[in-house]
Amino acid sequence: MKKYLGIDIGGTFTKTGILDENGAIISFAKGDTPKSGGIEAEIALIGEILEILDISTDDIESIGVGVPGPVDRSGMVHSPPNLKGWGEVDFAKFLSEFLEFPKYKIVVGNDANLAALAEYRFGNGARADPMVLITLGTGVGGAVIINGEPMMGKDGFAAELGHILIEPDGPRCGCGRRGCAEALISHKGIVRIAWDILKKDKGSVMWEMIGSNFDELTPLTVQQAADIGDPAANKVLKITTRHLAILLADLINIFNPERIVIGGGISRWGEALLGPARKEAKRQALKHLAKNVKIVRAKFYQRAGVIGAATAAMKI
Amino acid sequence: MKKYLGIDIGGTFTKTGILDENGAIISFAKGDTPKSGGIEAEIALIGEILEILDISTDDIESIGVGVPGPVDRSGMVHSPPNLKGWGEVDFAKFLSEFLEFPKYKIVVGNDANLAALAEYRFGNGARADPMVLITLGTGVGGAVIINGEPMMGKDGFAAELGHILIEPDGPRCGCGRRGCAEALISHKGIVRIAWDILKKDKGSVMWEMIGSNFDELTPLTVQQAADIGDPAANKVLKITTRHLAILLADLINIFNPERIVIGGGISRWGEALLGPARKEAKRQALKHLAKNVKIVRAKFYQRAGVIGAATAAMKI
Repeated sequence: MKKYLGIDIGGTFTKTGILDENGAIISFAKGDTPKSGGIEAEIALIGEILEILDISTDDIESIGVGVPGPVDRSGMVHSPPNLKGWGEVDFAKFLSEFLEFPKYKIVVGNDANLAALAEYRFGNGARADPMVLITLGTGVGGAVIINGEPMMGKDGFAAELGHILIEPDGPRCGCGRRGCAEALISHKGIVRIAWDILKKDKGSVMWEMIGSNFDELTPLTVQQAADIGDPAANKVLKITTRHLAILLADLINIFNPERIVIGGGISRWGEALLGPARKEAKRQALKHLAKNVKIVRAKFYQRAGVIGAATAAMKI
Repeated sequence: MKKYLGIDIGGTFTKTGILDENGAIISFAKGDTPKSGGIEAEIALIGEILEILDISTDDIESIGVGVPGPVDRSGMVHSPPNLKGWGEVDFAKFLSEFLEFPKYKIVVGNDANLAALAEYRFGNGARADPMVLITLGTGVGGAVIINGEPMMGKDGFAAELGHILIEPDGPRCGCGRRGCAEALISHKGIVRIAWDILKKDKGSVMWEMIGSNFDELTPLTVQQAADIGDPAANKVLKITTRHLAILLADLINIFNPERIVIGGGISRWGEALLGPARKEAKRQALKHLAKNVKIVRAKFYQRAGVIGAATAAMKI
């Protein structure tokens, strides 16, 4: 059985895994992504993790690497916002030299594109064409798989679906624009909405859940409070449903997708969020496009990046 | 020199033209699209037009037909909203029988997709990859050319770019949703905004221009009044600029296009609208995606559909 190495470099963790050609994880390990030291520190960390996994690159067919930022068509990484000191980097070249592994057998890609490939090939994407992935987490990421390949755009930067506008006068997004999906349906966006509502509702059970401490307020607080019928939490859920439905209806009208897969921590709310959002999105989208689209949760969460990176490696 | 027949069936006119392989129009004629009688009446009209043009199908390599509505991947037309009595139709089959012309040499497509092909191949699309077309007219249409081909989606209905949301509480769109681009940046959308502003500004020169008659108010009125410095018209221009910029920034973030081409009657406002909209869109879009995109006016207007239909025929 052939083996593929997937490396998922995130803002917090760097994860690696060996996959077989059926997408099964043979081994897995992770470490903290270095806060300083740039590429060199990251490469050293990867070396350590591979040593722990006791992997020889002789046994590996090819390597896929996911990074949380723009990767152009030639594989150059462009200043990932959460990886300090990276700048513009030919990461495959560094990794190839360090591991003494041929560069043409290393593929570097954007993490959302790779996660989408994982869902497409081995997850809930079910080889749909087109398949749209959105990830609702720290940020809102996106990818579109057309004919089995990520939609790349001119430079390789396409599918920034978290930066589709939802509310023209909405809160400021990290990108500078107002009212992007990412400013509303991300971890931070939901906490902001929840806090605004919580401030006006001193009777909400969420106050007790967070010990009156704002820093303890997370989307999970909202989800759990909504589950037990807290009115304030249900207001937040309703607003988030509306935002998500607008994004989904836009995506249906734009891509006429066969399937939309929703991943990221927020999607763990499950049907309490996805049920009404799906219904409202299909109501808003054009009828002949809404009719057949399936909107489902992702299969992969913590290991989506590693599986996706290895999946990309299988295509080399 | 090979000859191709392009037929553009619009809600108002049916236009036909013979093109050579360089995209030059050799002959052109048009008639009124029948208001009743469905496919049979339309086919009869096309027969009459071709007779006027004195064309024998023996001289034609292939035929392209554009229709103003959804066309699926198999070429089936699905109830174009402005063509009464059409329903679900295999138009190529009817035309093939009527003209005694082989069906495999007839291609039927959505008018926006075909206009985009025309710009891509012979117009201001300049074979950009990806190229996005939006048409601002009676409605707001769209198409995306990736790798030289229209992005089709699962069924062939993709790229309904006029139904991307711009204002969640905006005016009701024909599709049922609120605040779509089509409800704001179309002929009707701009007239609605202009009327709201005009009602509050009795001193606007537009009152004189329209003889105080609402029915005379068109986007051209606004354009001409703005050109001579009318404050009310400039307010409308500013609002329309903001709406268009939001749509353009969304399209940049979604597709990372090499080029966006803007057609349809409203785009004849030219740089008075496109200049500030381009600037604002690039400010709102993600920097690494906005950097290299070109936003230009279309080359083809009245004959875009015919040229596009013939261009599609060249690909058979």
